[in-house]
Order: sequence, then C-alpha cells, then structure tokens
Amino acid sequence: MGYVIGFDLGGMKMISAVVDEKLNPVTRQKKKTSAQSGGEAIYERIKDCITASIELSGLSPEKIKGIGIASPGPMDRKTGVILDTPNLGFKNFPLKQRLEKDFKIPVIVDNDVSAGLYGEFLRGAAQGFRNVVGLFPGTGIGGGMILDGRLFRGSTGNAGEIGHMIIQVNGPLCGCGQHGCVEALASRTAIAKDAVALAGSGAVPSLLQEAGTDFKRYKSGVFAKAYKNGEKSIVEIIDRSAWFLGIAMANCVNFINPEIVVLGGGLVEKLGAPYISAAERSMREHALAALVENVEVKQAKLGDDAAVIGAAGIIWEELAEN
Amino acid sequence: MGYVIGFDLGGMKMISAVVDEKLNPVTRQKKKTSAQSGGEAIYERIKDCITASIELSGLSPEKIKGIGIASPGPMDRKTGVILDTPNLGFKNFPLKQRLEKDFKIPVIVDNDVSAGLYGEFLRGAAQGFRNVVGLFPGTGIGGGMILDGRLFRGSTGNAGEIGHMIIQVNGPLCGCGQHGCVEALASRTAIAKDAVALAGSGAVPSLLQEAGTDFKRYKSGVFAKAYKNGEKSIVEIIDRSAWFLGIAMANCVNFINPEIVVLGGGLVEKLGAPYISAAERSMREHALAALVENVEVKQAKLGDDAAVIGAAGIIWEELAEN
Repeated sequence: MGYVIGFDLGGMKMISAVVDEKLNPVTRQKKKTSAQSGGEAIYERIKDCITASIELSGLSPEKIKGIGIASPGPMDRKTGVILDTPNLGFKNFPLKQRLEKDFKIPVIVDNDVSAGLYGEFLRGAAQGFRNVVGLFPGTGIGGGMILDGRLFRGSTGNAGEIGHMIIQVNGPLCGCGQHGCVEALASRTAIAKDAVALAGSGAVPSLLQEAGTDFKRYKSGVFAKAYKNGEKSIVEIIDRSAWFLGIAMANCVNFINPEIVVLGGGLVEKLGAPYISAAERSMREHALAALVENVEVKQAKLGDDAAVIGAAGIIWEELAEN
Repeated sequence: MGYVIGFDLGGMKMISAVVDEKLNPVTRQKKKTSAQSGGEAIYERIKDCITASIELSGLSPEKIKGIGIASPGPMDRKTGVILDTPNLGFKNFPLKQRLEKDFKIPVIVDNDVSAGLYGEFLRGAAQGFRNVVGLFPGTGIGGGMILDGRLFRGSTGNAGEIGHMIIQVNGPLCGCGQHGCVEALASRTAIAKDAVALAGSGAVPSLLQEAGTDFKRYKSGVFAKAYKNGEKSIVEIIDRSAWFLGIAMANCVNFINPEIVVLGGGLVEKLGAPYISAAERSMREHALAALVENVEVKQAKLGDDAAVIGAAGIIWEELAEN
C-alpha cells in the first residue's frame, strides 16, 4: 500500500496532491506559480509544494512511490524536459531529472490537457467510455483523446492540437500565424475580442460600465454575466463561438468516431449548460448522422482535481509497468 | 503452415488473393462486381471468385484458414453485416455469416480504406512507422489511421471520415449535405466539376476536344493529361485542390501527431509527384511547426494489393488471437 504525488503545474497556480492507489486525493497543497520569477525559483516552489503536501498528509516520505506532473507547454516526455514555455518561465528545464534526484522516486512529466482528460476518464465525466475526445476552450483551445481505452499521445507526445484545426480557410488570424483555426473563432480570446469592440462601440452599455474597454478585463466571468442576463449581442457572439466549436467537435467525431465528447476548461465552467447545448447542437448539425447519433456530450466534472488525478493515474501505471 | 484469402470488394471489381503467412499473395483472381445485379448475384460472384483463387493456387481447400474481406460502405464489423451500400447493391447483407456457412472457416469483414492503409503499414509505404494517417482522394476522400502501431477503427468501426472534415465554413456544398467539407474541395469530383465548367466555357480547348462537356467523362486520366501538359488553368484547379487537401493533412498532423502521412487512391496515382508535392507544401504551410517538421509524406505503393494484403493481415491476426 502506497501513495503517489499528482501534481498540476499551471501558469497561475500549482497543486500538489497526495493520491492513494484508488486515485483518491488524500491531501492537496496549492501555491502560486509566480511564473515571472524564472525557472529555478519556480522549481523551488514545486519542490516546496510537494514536500508540504506530504507533510500535510502525515505520511512518512517513503510511502510516496512516485510523482506525476501535469505541465503545459511543449515537452520531451521521455526525458521529462520542459521545452520553451513562456507561461512558466521554463526553457529546456529537466524537470523529471531534477525531481528524481531530489526525491529519489520515479517521476513522469505529461501534458496537462492530456492528464486532465485522463483524470476525467479514470474518475470523471468520461468514466466507462473507451473512445473519448476532450476539448477545453480557454485562452486557447486544448484537446486530448482516449482511444481504445488508452491515453493517446501521438508520435512525439504532442497529439490533440485541436485548437489549430483550420475550419475556415482565410478566416481570422490566429496566434499561431494561420487563419481560421478554431482557436481564432471559438476561444475565450476570440469572444473577448468581439465583446470589447462591441462594448467600445457603445452597443452594450452594461458591459462597458462593468469592464470598460480594456481587453485584459474581458475574462470569462465578465461575458458569462452578460450571457446569463440574456444581453442579446453577447449571446449572439457566444452562441456563434459555440457554433464554431461544434464544427470542430463534428470534425473530431467524423475522424475519431468516439462515444463521447467531453467539454471542459474555464469558458465551459463559466458559461455552463446553454453554451454546451449550443456547441452540441452545432456538432450534431455538422457531423455525419451515422457517426454522431450515439455520441454523448458531457461537461468535465472534476475541475482542479482532473489533472491531479490524471497525473497520479499515469505515474501509478508507470510504476506498475516497471 | 497455412494460407488465408485476402479479398478486396470494390464497386467495379473484386479481387480474391490466396495469401501466405508472410503476407505474400500467392495467386490472385479478379472479377467484375456488376453491382447493378443485386445482393444475391454479387454474393455468388464473391463465392466463385474465392473458389477460383483457391483452385488457381493448387492448394487443397483445407489449407485455407480464414477469409479477410475489405469492403466499402457502412458495416457492422462485429456481425459482418454490410449495411446500406448502394455502390454494391448490398443492403443489410450478412456477408460474414454467409461466407462462414459456405466455406466453414472464420471470416472478417473490414472497411476497405482501413484495410488498404493497413496493407501499406504491413508491407508498403508506411512499414516501420507507428503513427500513420492515410488520405485517399478519389470520388470522395477516404481516410484511415494506424495509432501506436495498431489499426484504429473508432467506437463503431467508422473512424477516418476525413472527407467530411469541414475546412471552409459556408464553402461549396458536399454530397453529405454540409458545406466546405474537404471532399467538396479536393476530391476528383470537385476537380471534375471545375474542369468541365472551364472546358464548357471554351477556356481549355484541348480538354473540350478530348472530353467534351459530359461531366461523367471527367475522370482522373483526363485531367492528369492536361495537368502533365501544363495546361495552365487545369494546373491551377488541381494545385488548388491539393492546397485544400494539404489543409486537411495539416489538421490531421496537429490532431494526431503522426510520423507519416500516406497519400493514395486513383487521383494520387494519376497525378503523381507534382500533385503530392503541392499537397505536402500546403500541409507544411498550415500545420504547427513543432508537429510537422519530422512528418514524412509518402505515396502509397501497393496499388491493388494494399487492401488484399491488409485484409489478409487482419484475418491472420484474428486467427492468432482465437
């Protein structure tokens, strides 16, 4: 009987949880990431956060058998090196190697979106399904897949870039340099862009009053309020973004033939059921009938625990194999 | 030591091959499908074709251990029932059950595009790779995937509908009822539509002379000739279709993170290297650099043997498991 650390490394905060063999988080410890402080300083915070979570559990350290880290950004999964990740201040940082040296137990570093979807597969909305596509709209749009009951990572660990699926040739410019990526049409950023311009034109006085014309203030909570209040032009902007998201979902359904599509992330949590319904309607309208008829659409349900549980599940499997 | 039948059931012709354990086709027998003759008549031809291929091999029938059928159209892979397939004249035809009754050996029915890609994976262009995406532009655009070294079929056996990936919202109408599917932009049908209109307008006298204005006569061979002759407006039409195909390839690369993209099918065989290069350029232009940099693009190389070898491989695996 032992435990592992499931660790969610985010741009804003980090969470270390001590997780048992049944994937129940026993204790959780949070810290701010303070990404601007740079790689070494962040690494110290990661170490402290892990140590604090173990102390909080009251377990003796030798009960902890491994560490699973869910991290954003491109990485080399084999070596556990985090490549250039401006969000975190990491650049070619050998996270796995450093942690293995300091804690003397096996460490796995995996993609945060994949880990989150895997958590939902092991203990959340996607439990009991074998083929799952996950879309997580936020600043960008993350994606992941469970195929034939296993987390699919692709040949270099970078599968699931659903956000950069081009669905509108010559569409709006995306951060990646392409045009018409679903991220440029349906992310929080895409909504914020339209909303701030609309507020600035004076068309939505309530929004102008609440958030002014500073693009940075246009976060999910701001539109969510206007959306729930039925502010007509905001409803139109958001429903249209859901319509685009539904096209990307339809493309995934036609390509992967999953049993379920899971929607999660900040935008989904804030906008809730009407947004999910709008996306689902568009998915059903745009996918082949034979493939979409039995597909379920569900909201992710583990919140912050998803990546922690997924990362714990991944390191447990790694330990079982070796 | 034994043999299996690898069988490719097409809308125009059927091929039955006796295939050894190393996946070498020992003998091949072809017949016209004569789809208009209806389900029972086609079934008789299938049976005769299989029997003839065994006779041709000189092997005693008990050396044949199983039958793998590659078939178009929606099917229930578990029961081996071919659902409504107008191309073949089959409607809910229990092909597996009928063949098992008549030949008294195990039979597997699988999707022809998947079987063809699997053949390329086992013995052709994709040999030695673990994550493969295949696109087969023709009348429509078929697709398939090898993921983590295994043929991926999705939850109901219908994965790989790349042709109905929407890449141009509000684009041209597709046969499926949607707008802007890659099939409506890059299939042989899409090219033929533009070419016949152009010829009809008098802009391409050589094409008008050769093929007139009957849409049905605009087959790959007709444009291929004009394309190779450098007929400017035809080159533009075909290169533009390759550009659209490249966008679909880029979407697949971003989503699946494969090591290789295989292009095959009638259009690719006829148009050859310049067409493949145009599609590849567009893929590299539209995919995320980190994902596309190591992706290879190769032309399928087994031709008619691909589906036969793939279907044989699938039934061999089935026999090994049971």
